[in-house]
Amino acid sequence: MNPRPRPSNGKPLIGITMGDPLGVGPETLVKALADPALRSRARFVILGFHDVLELAADQCELQPFWWREPYDAAPRAESGVLLADFDLPNLPRVNGQRQPDAAAGEASFAFVEEGVRHLQSGAFDALVTGPICKQSWRLAGKKFNGHTDLLAQRFQARRVSMLFVAGATRVALASDHIPLFELRNRFTIGLVHQPIDLLDQALRRWFGIERPHIGVLGVNPHAGEGGLLGDEETRIIEPALTMARNSGIRVSGPLPPDTAFLPESLARYDGLVAMYHDQGLIPIKTTSFHEAVNVTLGLPAVRTSPDHGVAFDIAGKNRANPGSMRAAIALAIQFATTGSPAAPAPALAPAEYSG
Amino acid sequence: MNPRPRPSNGKPLIGITMGDPLGVGPETLVKALADPALRSRARFVILGFHDVLELAADQCELQPFWWREPYDAAPRAESGVLLADFDLPNLPRVNGQRQPDAAAGEASFAFVEEGVRHLQSGAFDALVTGPICKQSWRLAGKKFNGHTDLLAQRFQARRVSMLFVAGATRVALASDHIPLFELRNRFTIGLVHQPIDLLDQALRRWFGIERPHIGVLGVNPHAGEGGLLGDEETRIIEPALTMARNSGIRVSGPLPPDTAFLPESLARYDGLVAMYHDQGLIPIKTTSFHEAVNVTLGLPAVRTSPDHGVAFDIAGKNRANPGSMRAAIALAIQFATTGSPAAPAPALAPAEYSG
Repeated sequence: MNPRPRPSNGKPLIGITMGDPLGVGPETLVKALADPALRSRARFVILGFHDVLELAADQCELQPFWWREPYDAAPRAESGVLLADFDLPNLPRVNGQRQPDAAAGEASFAFVEEGVRHLQSGAFDALVTGPICKQSWRLAGKKFNGHTDLLAQRFQARRVSMLFVAGATRVALASDHIPLFELRNRFTIGLVHQPIDLLDQALRRWFGIERPHIGVLGVNPHAGEGGLLGDEETRIIEPALTMARNSGIRVSGPLPPDTAFLPESLARYDGLVAMYHDQGLIPIKTTSFHEAVNVTLGLPAVRTSPDHGVAFDIAGKNRANPGSMRAAIALAIQFATTGSPAAPAPALAPAEYSG
Repeated sequence: MNPRPRPSNGKPLIGITMGDPLGVGPETLVKALADPALRSRARFVILGFHDVLELAADQCELQPFWWREPYDAAPRAESGVLLADFDLPNLPRVNGQRQPDAAAGEASFAFVEEGVRHLQSGAFDALVTGPICKQSWRLAGKKFNGHTDLLAQRFQARRVSMLFVAGATRVALASDHIPLFELRNRFTIGLVHQPIDLLDQALRRWFGIERPHIGVLGVNPHAGEGGLLGDEETRIIEPALTMARNSGIRVSGPLPPDTAFLPESLARYDGLVAMYHDQGLIPIKTTSFHEAVNVTLGLPAVRTSPDHGVAFDIAGKNRANPGSMRAAIALAIQFATTGSPAAPAPALAPAEYSG
């Protein structure tokens, strides 16, 4: 999957998709990469529109820091930042109203599709994706439910999970974009086990934690309170924990969800697994909205993104906070430097895993 | 319900139940009321065991600040703090292991039952309840699912809701101690409308907000994203919002749950309504564990409590943080002073409510 050797002396090549041209992606990107210290740590290829990025830089009173080339099949920056400029038949109007738009969806989809292609070929050491509008993808006739969906299909990954990283807080999701009450029908031991396993691998390989300790949340109030408030903890979550322990993973739970994100709990675990979207996203966004990063687990490659959407309401007004984009780029560089998730896990004696 | 006139010149009389004698209730209570400034704002009757409170004070190296009388049918403090000392046949051993215990459950239930009686009679202007252990109540043969359940039954209240208050953040729950996946069967327009209505009343009467603005959360990821991720927002929550608007309540939503607790969202609303226990409790506890207060909405009387449980693991070790108990007492005093929820709402012209 990743045949090209990672640059050993050189800097990693990070591909970045601009996201929806009408959203806050271009602005957050231009603000984040305006920092020379961040730029100095890697080489970058931005997949997007030069005009849109230039307008965003203008609006934020920032000097362009990239050079432009028309997009071709093998964009490559020997150093600094290359803007690989797409030429699409129907350019979205960036000065028009900021709302879901078929041409914008067509564009943001093209950026991601090409970015994924270069990630798969090994040309990019990591991919950072700017926010897209799912409604615009649908208007453009794209049938994917978002980045993670597209990545899973392109990489033919059977199991993927969303991981959110904010400082030392790491939360993987057992389920994400499904209606809350439909989760009941999909709530299986495998669904809970999978993110535990993927998170364990990520903590070892990307974060360099030799023997990670993972905390797994319950799904019911008070984690079911011994069966009084639901039996999914005993029927499903505990067997998933046993499965994980049997394969050598150090895991605790099910934790009462409402106290799992208190400082003393966060200090106890290297990562948490939440059962559903808002169980993980509410605390992450509430405490760390401008620094949290979305990471895709289960791919043989590195992909990160900011934790926010296109935010049409504030786009083009120099009001977007680039913190999450900056953190997404920094984390992609870190992961691309420390190792690939496709690398084999270090062999460890089974005895080390007991408990 | 509340025949005795609130003391106009005097200070309100606050009843406080000690909670489970084996839990952290006595310790947090003794630490909170050790503050003379807090004590000066009201008169207090503690329902509990003198010996237990004395031991807690000893362990925390605090001087006793109360006087003791045997519990009788009409405990009353003209000033300061009265410990109304219960004499029960089977005293729980407070130096034994801290765990669910029938005698302790019997005791904490008796404190609450008497406290509620004095609240109903109007002898107490407000009731603050220390944490109880539901398992101990069950061991003692008590069939109530907790304080709120008992209060609702004793007051014959048809509609009650849990409200959590932490500083200017106020979150009411549409549902609380039920298994998450059972909510689907109980998720009705009435279930969502009720806490909106109760919160609106509480914000006016207790918090003195003339025209409160209430934000109501969705139940699905991204509040259903226009029906793509669930239809409960359109089928149930939006009709409940319409009902509320038709009765003059200023309400917005359904809000995407994962950004509803960001500072700019909290600043926009006087209160939020969460759909289920952990949707409200995760952000409240994560951001404000040591200052959040649980308030019962829907009673013709004031009842508050700390947001934590008995915490047997740290009880008796001088490690419990009294912040939430202190806040619960302070809020009870504030509510008892500013007005009763049974008072009629001020008449307002319907025009004022538009939007």
